[in-house]
Amino acid sequence: MAEEFTVTPWEVKGRVDYEKLVKIFGTEFIGEELFKKIEALAGELHVLLRRRVFFSHRDLDLVLEDYEGGRGFFLYTGRGPSGPMHIGHIIPFILTRWLQEKFRANVYIMITDDEKYFDEPGMSLSEVKKWAYENTLDIIAVGFDPDRTFIFHDIEYIGKLYPMAVKVAKRINFNTARAVFGFTGSTNIGLIFYPALQVVPTFFEKKRCLIPAAIDQDPYWRIQRDIAESMGYYKTAALHSKFMPPLTGLEGKMSSSKPETAIFLHDDPKTVRYKIMKYAFSGGQPTIELHRKLGGNPEIDISFQWLHIYFEPDDVKLKKIEEEYRGGKMLTGELKEYLVEKLNNFLEEHRSRREQARELIKIIMYNGELARKMWKEGPWSPEDLE
Amino acid sequence: MAEEFTVTPWEVKGRVDYEKLVKIFGTEFIGEELFKKIEALAGELHVLLRRRVFFSHRDLDLVLEDYEGGRGFFLYTGRGPSGPMHIGHIIPFILTRWLQEKFRANVYIMITDDEKYFDEPGMSLSEVKKWAYENTLDIIAVGFDPDRTFIFHDIEYIGKLYPMAVKVAKRINFNTARAVFGFTGSTNIGLIFYPALQVVPTFFEKKRCLIPAAIDQDPYWRIQRDIAESMGYYKTAALHSKFMPPLTGLEGKMSSSKPETAIFLHDDPKTVRYKIMKYAFSGGQPTIELHRKLGGNPEIDISFQWLHIYFEPDDVKLKKIEEEYRGGKMLTGELKEYLVEKLNNFLEEHRSRREQARELIKIIMYNGELARKMWKEGPWSPEDLE
Repeated sequence: MAEEFTVTPWEVKGRVDYEKLVKIFGTEFIGEELFKKIEALAGELHVLLRRRVFFSHRDLDLVLEDYEGGRGFFLYTGRGPSGPMHIGHIIPFILTRWLQEKFRANVYIMITDDEKYFDEPGMSLSEVKKWAYENTLDIIAVGFDPDRTFIFHDIEYIGKLYPMAVKVAKRINFNTARAVFGFTGSTNIGLIFYPALQVVPTFFEKKRCLIPAAIDQDPYWRIQRDIAESMGYYKTAALHSKFMPPLTGLEGKMSSSKPETAIFLHDDPKTVRYKIMKYAFSGGQPTIELHRKLGGNPEIDISFQWLHIYFEPDDVKLKKIEEEYRGGKMLTGELKEYLVEKLNNFLEEHRSRREQARELIKIIMYNGELARKMWKEGPWSPEDLE
Repeated sequence: MAEEFTVTPWEVKGRVDYEKLVKIFGTEFIGEELFKKIEALAGELHVLLRRRVFFSHRDLDLVLEDYEGGRGFFLYTGRGPSGPMHIGHIIPFILTRWLQEKFRANVYIMITDDEKYFDEPGMSLSEVKKWAYENTLDIIAVGFDPDRTFIFHDIEYIGKLYPMAVKVAKRINFNTARAVFGFTGSTNIGLIFYPALQVVPTFFEKKRCLIPAAIDQDPYWRIQRDIAESMGYYKTAALHSKFMPPLTGLEGKMSSSKPETAIFLHDDPKTVRYKIMKYAFSGGQPTIELHRKLGGNPEIDISFQWLHIYFEPDDVKLKKIEEEYRGGKMLTGELKEYLVEKLNNFLEEHRSRREQARELIKIIMYNGELARKMWKEGPWSPEDLE
C-alpha cells in the first residue's frame, strides 16, 4: 500500500516519499557528479551534503558554473520570528554559513517580522520584534562572516525593500498568490502582499541567488522564477533539504507548538536528556533480551537519524554505531545517551557563541561592510527602479 | 421613471441622485445649522460650502466640537498621480486649504505613486514618479501653509508608513477589501495591500481626522471607521462633495482619459476657449430667436453649473447671470465667454503660483516645520507600534 503524505509550505503530514516529491515539485535530485563538483570546488563536502540531507535543487549547476566563471553568486535565506528556534530551524543556516565560507559569497538573511505578525492572530508587534531580536542572535551564533552578511528585519528595512517590492507586486495577482500560498477570503491583506517582499532579496545583486531551505518552501520561489527574467534578473537557484524528523517519529516535521517533538536551542542539558529519553522514537526492541537477539532498526530510530543528519559528522563512528545498534550490541538507552551528549555539546557551544552575538548584531545589521553598503547605497540603482 | 445611476469609488455613471446616494451610503446631509456653525467659527462660508458643492459628511459635527473644545483636528487628502490634473481634481484641495487657514489645522497630503503604479497596467515607475512631482506642484500652487502642510510620496515615505500599515493590514481581510474596492482574482497583490496604507495617515495625530473628498471615495473610509477605535484612534470624519460635471453634460464625472470632458490645469487660453465653445453642454435653445423667446435652462447648462460650483464666487453676479440666461437675455455664447474668461484667469493665476511651487516643494515635503517633524520624529511613538 502506498503511504500517504502531504507537503505544502504550510503543512507537512505523513512520511514523505522524497522520490515522489521531487517529481511532483519538478525539482532535480543532486546527482553524484554535482556533489563531486561541489567537493572539488569547496575542497570538502559538508556533512549535510555528504549525508544527502540537502538532496534536491534548482539551477545549482548554473550557480557553480557562475562561480567557476568568476561571476560569483550570493546566498539568501530567512526566518519568521514567531518564537524560539529549535534544532530543525538552524540546520539550513549551518549549510548557508559553510557555503559562504567556501565560496566567499555574500549572505542576506531576512527576518520576516511583518509576515509573522500577519500570520499569528494573537501576536503583538512588540512580541514579534522581541523574537526577531532573539532569533537574530541565534542565527549570528552560527558564525557568519560579519562583513559579508546582512541580516535585516523587514519592518525596519522596508524603506529599501518597498521600491522593488512594488515592481514585484504588480506582477503577482491574487489567483497566483492564492494557489501558491493557500490564501482564502479571510486571509488579511498584509499576508497577501508579503510574497512580493519575499522575492525582493533575490534581486539584491545582479548575480544568481542561491536559497538553501527545506523542500516544502520551494513553491514560494516558483513565483520568483516566473517573473525574474522579465524583470532583468536571474531565476533564483535553490538547494533543498529533507525535513529533520520530529523526536516523536519519522512522520511530519518538528513543531514549535508541540515541544515534545523538538529540541530548542535554549533547552538546558537536563531538558535535552529528559526529552530524548522520553520522546525520541526508538527503533529498538521491547526488551533487552529481544534487542540483543534481533537488534534495532536505525532507519526508524530518531536518535540514530539525528546523528546521521548532523550530530555525528564522523562517518567511521556513525558506521560503527549503526552496525552495533543493528546487531543488538548497542541498546536504545546507550544510543540515546550518545545523542544527548552530542546535542548538549552542540547547544553549549551555540549558547556561548550566542553571547558573543550580542556584540556582533550591530555589525551584521548596521555597521559591517555589507550592512553599511545596504543601508547607505542600498541595493538599487536608479535604473533598477524605472 | 427613476433615472439609473452608479456610484462606486471606481465608477460614476448616469445622473447622480444625491438624496438617494446619501441614503445608500449612510452619510448625512450637512444641515443648515451645521453650515451656520462653520460660518460662525470660520467668520465666513467658502463658496464651495455656500453653493452646497460640499453637501454631505460623517462626524463633521464632532470635528467642530473638537475645535471648539480646543482639541483641534487635522486634515488629510490625497492624489493618485497617474497623469495631469484637471479642474475637478483641484476642487477638494481648494476647500482643504481654506479649512486649514480658518481652523489652523495641519494638512497631510498623500501622493499614492504605489497605488497608481499598481493600478495602471502600462505605467512605469519613472512615469508615475514624474506625475507625482508634477501633481505635487499643482497641489502646492493651491496655497497651503508650508509649515502646517506635509506632502509625501508613498514609496519615498514608506519607512514611516509601513510600521502602522502592518497593524492596519492585519485587521482587513481579503473579503472585506474585495467588497469595498472591487478586487478580483486578477487584481495584483500590491493593489490589494494598498487600502492598509491609505488608512495610515488618519492616525498621524491623536486628534480627529477630517477628509474632504468627492462622495464616491466614501466607501474607502468605512474600513477605517470599522477598525479605528479598536486601535485606539478616532473614526475619521469626512466632508463629501458632489461631482463636478464633465463639460459634456450632467452625467458621469470628468475623466482624464476623455480630454473633451475636462479642462486641465495646463490647458492654455486658446484650448480652454476651444473646449468650452465646442464641448460645454448648453441649456440654451437651438436658435437665437427661440432662445430670446424661451430662455435657457441653467440647471443643465454646464457653463452655468461650473460658474455656480466655483468660478463665479459673487452670489449677486451669479444670480444676475442666472436670471438673464433663464430670461433669454444672455445667449449661450455669451455665457460661455464669461466662463472662459473666469477659467483663464483662474488658470493663469494657478500657473504663476505653480512656478513658485518649485521652490516650496522642498519645504512642504522635507524642510517645513511639519515636514521636518514627520521625517525626523515620525508620526509614531513606541507605544503606537506595540
